[in-house]
Amino acid sequence: MTSMPREFATEFEIAWADCDPAGIVFYPHFFRFMDTAFQRLLAAKGTCQAGLQAAFGVVGTPIVEANARFRSPARPLDRLAISISGPAWSARTFRVDYVARIGAGVAFEGYEVRVLARAEAAGRLATIAPPSAFKDLFTL
Amino acid sequence: MTSMPREFATEFEIAWADCDPAGIVFYPHFFRFMDTAFQRLLAAKGTCQAGLQAAFGVVGTPIVEANARFRSPARPLDRLAISISGPAWSARTFRVDYVARIGAGVAFEGYEVRVLARAEAAGRLATIAPPSAFKDLFTL
Amino acid sequence: MTSMPREFATEFEIAWADCDPAGIVFYPHFFRFMDTAFQRLLAAKGTCQAGLQAAFGVVGTPIVEANARFRSPARPLDRLAISISGPAWSARTFRVDYVARIGAGVAFEGYEVRVLARAEAAGRLATIAPPSAFKDLFTL
Amino acid sequence: MTSMPREFATEFEIAWADCDPAGIVFYPHFFRFMDTAFQRLLAAKGTCQAGLQAAFGVVGTPIVEANARFRSPARPLDRLAISISGPAWSARTFRVDYVARIGAGVAFEGYEVRVLARAEAAGRLATIAPPSAFKDLFTL
Repeated sequence: MTSMPREFATEFEIAWADCDPAGIVFYPHFFRFMDTAFQRLLAAKGTCQAGLQAAFGVVGTPIVEANARFRSPARPLDRLAISISGPAWSARTFRVDYVARIGAGVAFEGYEVRVLARAEAAGRLATIAPPSAFKDLFTL
Repeated sequence: MTSMPREFATEFEIAWADCDPAGIVFYPHFFRFMDTAFQRLLAAKGTCQAGLQAAFGVVGTPIVEANARFRSPARPLDRLAISISGPAWSARTFRVDYVARIGAGVAFEGYEVRVLARAEAAGRLATIAPPSAFKDLFTL
Repeated sequence: MTSMPREFATEFEIAWADCDPAGIVFYPHFFRFMDTAFQRLLAAKGTCQAGLQAAFGVVGTPIVEANARFRSPARPLDRLAISISGPAWSARTFRVDYVARIGAGVAFEGYEVRVLARAEAAGRLATIAPPSAFKDLFTL
Repeated sequence: MTSMPREFATEFEIAWADCDPAGIVFYPHFFRFMDTAFQRLLAAKGTCQAGLQAAFGVVGTPIVEANARFRSPARPLDRLAISISGPAWSARTFRVDYVARIGAGVAFEGYEVRVLARAEAAGRLATIAPPSAFKDLFTL
């Protein structure tokens, strides 16, 4: 248990390319921003997907569940500020929470449930329990 | 209330472009497939986003919530068969459910909660209650 | 004719999502970065696609040709610095040139040939000769 | 030299997600379709990127140049029929040509210049001359 604030903030600019014929962000791009925010969090902690592979023998941090509630649309050139909280640890999974704001308004709130995965025979992936050295990344 | 089966099936082929350095589909693309399956459902019902605009004055069917649980990874050239059930109607929203299979295995299960939105002043969107003519599309 | 330097520089961070199973950027994303660099150039000139529509009645700046020569691969977390030169004006088109670097090395060189397009009947687009007020944007 | 027709045809459906606020396909997606058409060509020849790795030790078929001339815009639900001709072989590269049609009209014409690449130390890629067994794939 920790009383440390564990929040990470990062920012994106909405591109013309992210928007659909209705003029607003095509929603799967919000999940792309969530994933990229997570990769930036790893970078802020001094690692990355290749670093996780070297340290833990994992091929990545696949998502087992993703969710987002979209509060207001986003448009080209909007600045999207994403705050991450977590991870919250379970036996084999960890959950990361996201709040994205444009100015003072909430654009969306979401979460990802991730695992650490190792490659197995026949192209299968097997999850491993998050090692304490992995958890420690996020408490420093 | 209806006893009719209201299921729609469509198929995608996983592209090299959909996969990330871990060799598996980058998960936001699964939401893209869900959205595209919904657009194909509209087409099968004889309409499309432009048709909805003409018929109901709406600029689109924005998503207010999206969720997916990923059961097994997908790779280039996999055939992804998506079945849609619903919509399930609420006062101002409707929910569409998706199950995606590769062969006999489930790749993911997900849902989208959508609204019908009209353009308002200052670029805002306002939801409207789904008209019965819109609901009727899905029961025929 | 002008002796003014007309160069604009902007930067991107390569995302995990931009890379394919070979671990390097899937090349169409480089064109996405070129387009986004162009949109940022418009923003730096005080306008945007919506601004062009208001000022010139155009629905956008469609591309009639795009080209890129890829010099070296890019990977997650690489910083991609793009310099734009131009536009070079023709009667109905204008060409924008891009050089993208990662550190001291060139990642790619490319260009886009664009037009200004107005919506016509039956969903067609018609190009218009770039008005001088549009050209002036880029010389200030 | 061969008198054989070496043309391959495949089809895509334009998705809502492929289109931008101007209502037409965001052009980098056309390059994505070109790449995917090439991957389907490999599949029609009985191989794929993983197959090329197993057979030739290459990590992929990176692009060193890509070009497209866009003739007419494409919109959601359009059927895009792409014909591939080639490859045309050079010492270390090969060029693949694409023509994309919607109905009787040409949507775009493009080409890709590709190489076969092996992974080297320090994450570098080195091109290899296309082996005859690779060239033979396309003449059968």
